[in-house]
Order: sequence, then structure tokens, then C-alpha cells
Amino acid sequence: MMTESTTINTPIRRATIKDVTFILGFIRELAEYEHEPDKVLCTEEMLEKTIFGPFPYAKVLIAQTEEGVPAGFALYFYNYSTWNGKPGIYLEDLYVQPKYRGKSYGSALLYALAQELVDIDGGRLEWSVLKWNTPSIEFYKRLGAVPMEEWQTMRVDGGQIAELAKRSSGILE
Amino acid sequence: MMTESTTINTPIRRATIKDVTFILGFIRELAEYEHEPDKVLCTEEMLEKTIFGPFPYAKVLIAQTEEGVPAGFALYFYNYSTWNGKPGIYLEDLYVQPKYRGKSYGSALLYALAQELVDIDGGRLEWSVLKWNTPSIEFYKRLGAVPMEEWQTMRVDGGQIAELAKRSSGILE
Repeated sequence: MMTESTTINTPIRRATIKDVTFILGFIRELAEYEHEPDKVLCTEEMLEKTIFGPFPYAKVLIAQTEEGVPAGFALYFYNYSTWNGKPGIYLEDLYVQPKYRGKSYGSALLYALAQELVDIDGGRLEWSVLKWNTPSIEFYKRLGAVPMEEWQTMRVDGGQIAELAKRSSGILE
Repeated sequence: MMTESTTINTPIRRATIKDVTFILGFIRELAEYEHEPDKVLCTEEMLEKTIFGPFPYAKVLIAQTEEGVPAGFALYFYNYSTWNGKPGIYLEDLYVQPKYRGKSYGSALLYALAQELVDIDGGRLEWSVLKWNTPSIEFYKRLGAVPMEEWQTMRVDGGQIAELAKRSSGILE
């Protein structure tokens, strides 16, 4: 059960371009937690261009302390379900700095996303978690999340993208 | 190796609102193939609103025969990788009608998406496949796709979304 003070003490706001240093810091700390610190190729300039540029590919919410210090973030985008005929929200990154954990910042970010999903008449809130990360999986299950165990995600990246693209005869406009 | 005639014979075009009947038909046939025919709640009106309305949540490519008859489709949206600092493409549905299989329509759709990924300077092409669907998984592996076996997708939907949304204290604007 939520108390009024919990609600008041976890303000969530939309990120602006002034937050890119915090956002990149959070992305790097999360990659470290995921044992993949060297995978982060992202820079502040790339965030400025892809998130805060003319065509934003993702959205960012910041959870901040009562003093206005960013404590964590949620980076997400809209996905789509053809079964539902509705959009959904895919949560790419959810991170709260260790010193701010246990204060419901992570839950507050998830609740805000659930509210945004209601606002856009969306159907699903989805994200991925590393299979070894049992504490997170247990936390998510307590929030009502279900693992999609029948489905396997596939990926093509790197040079193979160019290989496939070369075989395209283009799109008729 | 691609021949010139293969390229000419598999024209790919962007869908318009006039294609919603075909698109919904493909969505339903794909759900039947996935043994989940009853999961499709989508209607033509929902497609018109969510794909061809003021805020399109997804994009659709149509593969058509030389006579201009739609043979299959790809429905996709842009996702985002914080490791790459770049967008990607998530392929929600790829479907070619049985009578048109073996004519490279499916590959042509994937190649067109790879080309679009190059055009937007994106990093990854991703999608999900049912784990029992070995023929599709083998087809995708031959194209260079890798299964993301370390990651588990989690989902919240239905009434639980409203439960979580109720706990939100909103987003400061």
C-alpha cells in the first residue's frame, strides 16, 4: 500500500537535453552492473542527436531527489502489438543509483510508465532482463510482470546489416 | 547470389490506409500459423487509427506480385539501444502467404528493412520468434541472425497496467 509521503517524495520528470551527462552516466553504470562496461559506444553527442534532436527515437524520465538531484532514469520507446492493434511501451533501460535504492524510485518510474501507457491507450509494458539477474526478475514478478518464455529474440547487427542491405532492390514510393 | 530477375520480381512498397484489409488478413493468418488465432483483437479501424492516423506507432511494407497483388507484409517500428546510442528496427510481424512462399518475398522484406536501417544510421535489426518454430529460426540464422539467449523478455498487460498506473503520482512537466 502506498502512503502519501511515498508519492510526494519520488518526483518523476521528463528529461531535457541538459540531462545528457546524467543519462550517459546512468547508461554506463547500468552496463557495468550488467558486466558489459565495454559495450557502451554511446556518447553525449549521440544522445543529443537521437533523443533530443528533430526525430526523437526514445523518451527519458528522470527520478529525482527532493533536492532535485537525478537519482535514476527510465529510457523507453513505443512499440506495437498487431494482436492488440495498439501501441505499447518498451522499457529499454531502468536504473537507480545504488545510494538511492530502497526509496521506491524504480517503482515510481515504472508506475509513471504504466500511467503513460494508459494515456496512450496502450496494451503492454515490456522490457528485457538478464536471465542471471534473479533479484530484478523477482522484483518485476512482484509488480505483476510475466516472463515471455515461449519467445526467442533474434538479432542482426554489425557488418551483417550492410550485407543484407546490399541485396535490397529498394522500396517503391 | 542474387540475380537481376529476383530483384525485379519482388517489389516492396510502403502500405497505405487502403491496405488495411490485406494487413488485417495477414495478421490473422500469422496468428493462426502461431496457433493463437483467438489472440487477434485488432480491427481495421484500429489499424487505421494507430498506423495510418496522426501518430503512426508502426510502419508497414508490402511485398507484392508482378501483378500488384499483396503477397505478404512486414510491420515494424523503431527501437533504441543505449549501448549503441542509435535507433534500431524491431520487426513485429513478417508474413508471406503460403501460396507465395519460396519466391524470396520474405527475404526481400528483410533486405528492405536492412536498407532502411542503414538509411537511419541504425544499429540492430531485431524480432522475436516462437521457440518451437525451428524452420523459421533456421531461415533467420542463415541470414546471419543470432538468438539473444541471455535475455528474458518480461511483460505486464491487462488489468495489471491499471493497477500500476493507479500508484503513479504523475510526471512533472
